[in-house]
Amino acid sequence: MPVYKAPVEDVLFLLNDVFPIARHNNLPGFADATPDMVEAILAEGAKLCEEVFAPLNLSGDQEGCTRNPDGSVTTPKGFKEAYEAYTAGGWMGLAVPEEFGGQGLPSVLNTVMQEFVSSANLALGMYPGLTQGAIAALLVHGTEEQKRTYLPKMVEGAWTGTMNLTEPHCGTDLGLLKSKAVPNGDGSYAISGTKIFISAGEHDMAENIVHLVLARIEGAPQGTKGISLFVVPKFLVNADGSVGERNGVSCGSLEHKMGIHGNATCVMNYDGAKGWLVGEANRGLNAMFVMMNEARLAVGVQGLAVSEVAYQNAVAYAKDRLQGRALTGAKFPDKPADPIIVHPDVRRTLLSIKAVNEAARALIVWTGLNSDIAHRSSDEAARQVADDYMGLMTPVAKGVLTDLGFDNAVKAQQMFGGHGYIEEWGMSQFVRDARIAMIYEGANGIQAMDLVGRKLGKDGGRAVMTFFNEVGAFCQENAGDEAMKAYVAPLQQGLGHLQQATMWFMQNAMAKPDNAGAGATDYMHLFGLVVMGYMWARMAKAAQARKAQGNGSAEAMDAKLLTGRFFMERLMPETATRLARITTGADTTMAMPVEAF
Amino acid sequence: MPVYKAPVEDVLFLLNDVFPIARHNNLPGFADATPDMVEAILAEGAKLCEEVFAPLNLSGDQEGCTRNPDGSVTTPKGFKEAYEAYTAGGWMGLAVPEEFGGQGLPSVLNTVMQEFVSSANLALGMYPGLTQGAIAALLVHGTEEQKRTYLPKMVEGAWTGTMNLTEPHCGTDLGLLKSKAVPNGDGSYAISGTKIFISAGEHDMAENIVHLVLARIEGAPQGTKGISLFVVPKFLVNADGSVGERNGVSCGSLEHKMGIHGNATCVMNYDGAKGWLVGEANRGLNAMFVMMNEARLAVGVQGLAVSEVAYQNAVAYAKDRLQGRALTGAKFPDKPADPIIVHPDVRRTLLSIKAVNEAARALIVWTGLNSDIAHRSSDEAARQVADDYMGLMTPVAKGVLTDLGFDNAVKAQQMFGGHGYIEEWGMSQFVRDARIAMIYEGANGIQAMDLVGRKLGKDGGRAVMTFFNEVGAFCQENAGDEAMKAYVAPLQQGLGHLQQATMWFMQNAMAKPDNAGAGATDYMHLFGLVVMGYMWARMAKAAQARKAQGNGSAEAMDAKLLTGRFFMERLMPETATRLARITTGADTTMAMPVEAF
Repeated sequence: MPVYKAPVEDVLFLLNDVFPIARHNNLPGFADATPDMVEAILAEGAKLCEEVFAPLNLSGDQEGCTRNPDGSVTTPKGFKEAYEAYTAGGWMGLAVPEEFGGQGLPSVLNTVMQEFVSSANLALGMYPGLTQGAIAALLVHGTEEQKRTYLPKMVEGAWTGTMNLTEPHCGTDLGLLKSKAVPNGDGSYAISGTKIFISAGEHDMAENIVHLVLARIEGAPQGTKGISLFVVPKFLVNADGSVGERNGVSCGSLEHKMGIHGNATCVMNYDGAKGWLVGEANRGLNAMFVMMNEARLAVGVQGLAVSEVAYQNAVAYAKDRLQGRALTGAKFPDKPADPIIVHPDVRRTLLSIKAVNEAARALIVWTGLNSDIAHRSSDEAARQVADDYMGLMTPVAKGVLTDLGFDNAVKAQQMFGGHGYIEEWGMSQFVRDARIAMIYEGANGIQAMDLVGRKLGKDGGRAVMTFFNEVGAFCQENAGDEAMKAYVAPLQQGLGHLQQATMWFMQNAMAKPDNAGAGATDYMHLFGLVVMGYMWARMAKAAQARKAQGNGSAEAMDAKLLTGRFFMERLMPETATRLARITTGADTTMAMPVEAF
Repeated sequence: MPVYKAPVEDVLFLLNDVFPIARHNNLPGFADATPDMVEAILAEGAKLCEEVFAPLNLSGDQEGCTRNPDGSVTTPKGFKEAYEAYTAGGWMGLAVPEEFGGQGLPSVLNTVMQEFVSSANLALGMYPGLTQGAIAALLVHGTEEQKRTYLPKMVEGAWTGTMNLTEPHCGTDLGLLKSKAVPNGDGSYAISGTKIFISAGEHDMAENIVHLVLARIEGAPQGTKGISLFVVPKFLVNADGSVGERNGVSCGSLEHKMGIHGNATCVMNYDGAKGWLVGEANRGLNAMFVMMNEARLAVGVQGLAVSEVAYQNAVAYAKDRLQGRALTGAKFPDKPADPIIVHPDVRRTLLSIKAVNEAARALIVWTGLNSDIAHRSSDEAARQVADDYMGLMTPVAKGVLTDLGFDNAVKAQQMFGGHGYIEEWGMSQFVRDARIAMIYEGANGIQAMDLVGRKLGKDGGRAVMTFFNEVGAFCQENAGDEAMKAYVAPLQQGLGHLQQATMWFMQNAMAKPDNAGAGATDYMHLFGLVVMGYMWARMAKAAQARKAQGNGSAEAMDAKLLTGRFFMERLMPETATRLARITTGADTTMAMPVEAF
């Protein structure tokens, strides 16, 4: 069975040394997050994930979910109990305000816990994950009554949440959606329509399910400006807050998916179900978009998470599997063969995963921290910078980390040779599970268009200019530091490529938007390389500082520095290719007649 | 259900215009392969694949194979009949000498048919594919009696074949294998041991199964120099050639695999099974290696094949799925949305698959033709060049085309958004099936080591120098041709990068072989880009010639030229990154302590 150990030490290095959260202890909730407290929380979370969630991952994949004849859904053995352990530990409300039963701690800690949970058991982690998304939506857009009705139950885990957007004929283009809402005259609406791909849409873990549903109020404008958001509970809620009669919503079938078999992906039928408007009428898409950054960041976390657990298993296998001899002569002459970790191609593969994972984790912690600042700071300028970064980095984290997370799962699987293709080893599951993260919450091509078409030019390019200035200033500050040269010089070059690509879009995509479209995916990955390179440079700086202070294990910091060097040598050079592709423009791509494809 | 149309026109362009096989009609079997005959054969093969094999692909994946309590294996519904249609059509022996019941046609036609078969139904196509591999081994190494006993039955399809190499503790490193062979005193051996991952090891399609098995004769030297090859039929063969009593070999279980569910991947138990030596004692690995090139080329073909069928389905979906509007304004204002093929990022994705597929097909036809020349030419110099190319291109075709084939299947799946993740659409199957080709017949890291460690330096680098000279000469000849500039200039640059990388290995890997190991995979892909670029340059030249002659559809040739241009603009620039990675060397990779991974 696959192994998993939560990377607590690496997270502590990020939270204490690279982006010290102690600096932010003026923010609400941060004062409670002392280093000792953070370490204790992470250790507790790690324990839950390693001991309860992870052992159910392979069996959950093999068993999958079952829809019973009455429309109820049974989740895999052990999932309900694991979910209860999660809620009993208070994890659902870790970052939710205390007035609704949460702990009000920094949300970056929740983001870190999402990584551990998704590594240990992605399919299981999606049940609370979607609930947290629904909590976030209701917190921002719900009425006081809605918050009082739903939030405490959701925070304690008695009720879970879902998001209902997609319909058979519309996913990306929500303007086409047809589900309708007819006023009942009592303030509620009758919701009808079919929603597909609804994760955790029906299951046996909670006594109620709170569906957030996009639908069109009768007579509303066509397109995206006529869509509203509704809360539609599976069971109506009595005046005393208890669960009442069944609402007109049910699971019509379960999808047969490539992966995340332990999560119930439902076709949901709404048949005059009673729902209540959340936020303003016809502003449902805006309501969804407000929480889109958090949801997309969480999917980026999943990319890292599966990459991490796949990596750990590949390392274990590479140390254990005896096959062939080192190119420089036998390393273990007393054994029948050397472990395959002696082979340079195996090490190169493993390091290329590790170098991405550690940068990805830094990006996620940094972005999670920006999310906290954007939501909690009383300093408007700080809020603006953090919010700019949040908007800019979200498509990068989602698109790049899930693309790389999948690639890395494939690389890790490759280390197993034929055994990687056999389901019992669990590597196939990591690949199949990782695949979904490139698709949901906006397929990665959409992330690229969001970055290039929306985020780059927003507020006159303020966010991207701030980022360029920050990275440029970092390079300049450290230009004279010989120990930082191996990190700063490649970063500087990558930044140059990114700036050239940005300039090229400014000069060539205004008049000809196809030039932006044809270069968007390469630009997103170029951006990802530079921001990961920046993360590595900051980690290298912090590692050197810790070594100089004699603080903690020098071996761990040496490994950090070496991994960062690997990133700069082997991954950073790709920025040149990305730039070259972007600047060839869209002409060839658009010239192909449709019938010639 | 997924669609499939065999790319007959594209193959004819390659066989008639790019690498005209008519030039080789002095070779045995080629005189029969007139253009009309080739077209008729391919049309017939296309029909079988489109109408019989393809409709069973999805159902075969969903049903899978079943091992019955008596150890027999039932293949998916329809597989047996489809296999019979294949054998009845004479496809098994297309390129086998007529004296054994074959048609003696050029083996490049068989290679082309392997593409069609593997696109239509990879799991089904593996049954005859492995039989063809076993036929090839017996043709080269079998005694006259063995050939007379087995080949006619195998060519007519009544008996199938397998390859038994892998054991639980050894895959790549066959020197570790333990299966043993004890002489029975009558010229036969008693074979005992366990083999795993045996494709088509047991099934219900044929009346006998001819296993080729690697084992160690009692008292043989340790390591690779003590391994012999045996033929072990499932049923012993009576003196009159009929099927006799059951031999001591049986299927212990079926593997649960990520894909190719329709193929029975067996654990095979040999329990004193009667076998006969094939070729010389202790020279079994050499016997396997002789046919390794063909087998590895066939796996490269599978990479292309799955990429092709995934592409075709992605194109169909992209033309059909209405979602969003073109960046330059609605293209189909009367429809609720534009088909997604209007979007530059969708087109870029599709073209990046198409550009690889067409180059891959050219590489495979070229290499298949070299295989024919190497085996059939009476001109020793021509044989040597062809054999050199065959050896050099085999790891490239296997490693690069299967890596890219998988990546392309993933890209094609991505075009479907959430629907790509649902099994009923068939795109998940293409991804899961394509994955195995990166692993079997030598995992791709092994292909890279074969290229760098064995093929590059062989005969003083004769093969690679011949290739460099050929590509260099092509560039020079066409340097003055304005119409070829878009192809020649990027090819020349890519060739330069490949030559620099080769030189770097010569200077840095002799004394420090880890430098070769750490750069091998990047080198293989760099080589792949250059050889695909060369294929594109030759196709562009042939397409321009055909346009000038007014021969056939100008639209098809325009599409060819545009696709080649896309390759040069978007794929070729990657050579720079590959070179940069290689020349960073192995120091960082090897410096990481094992415990720090």
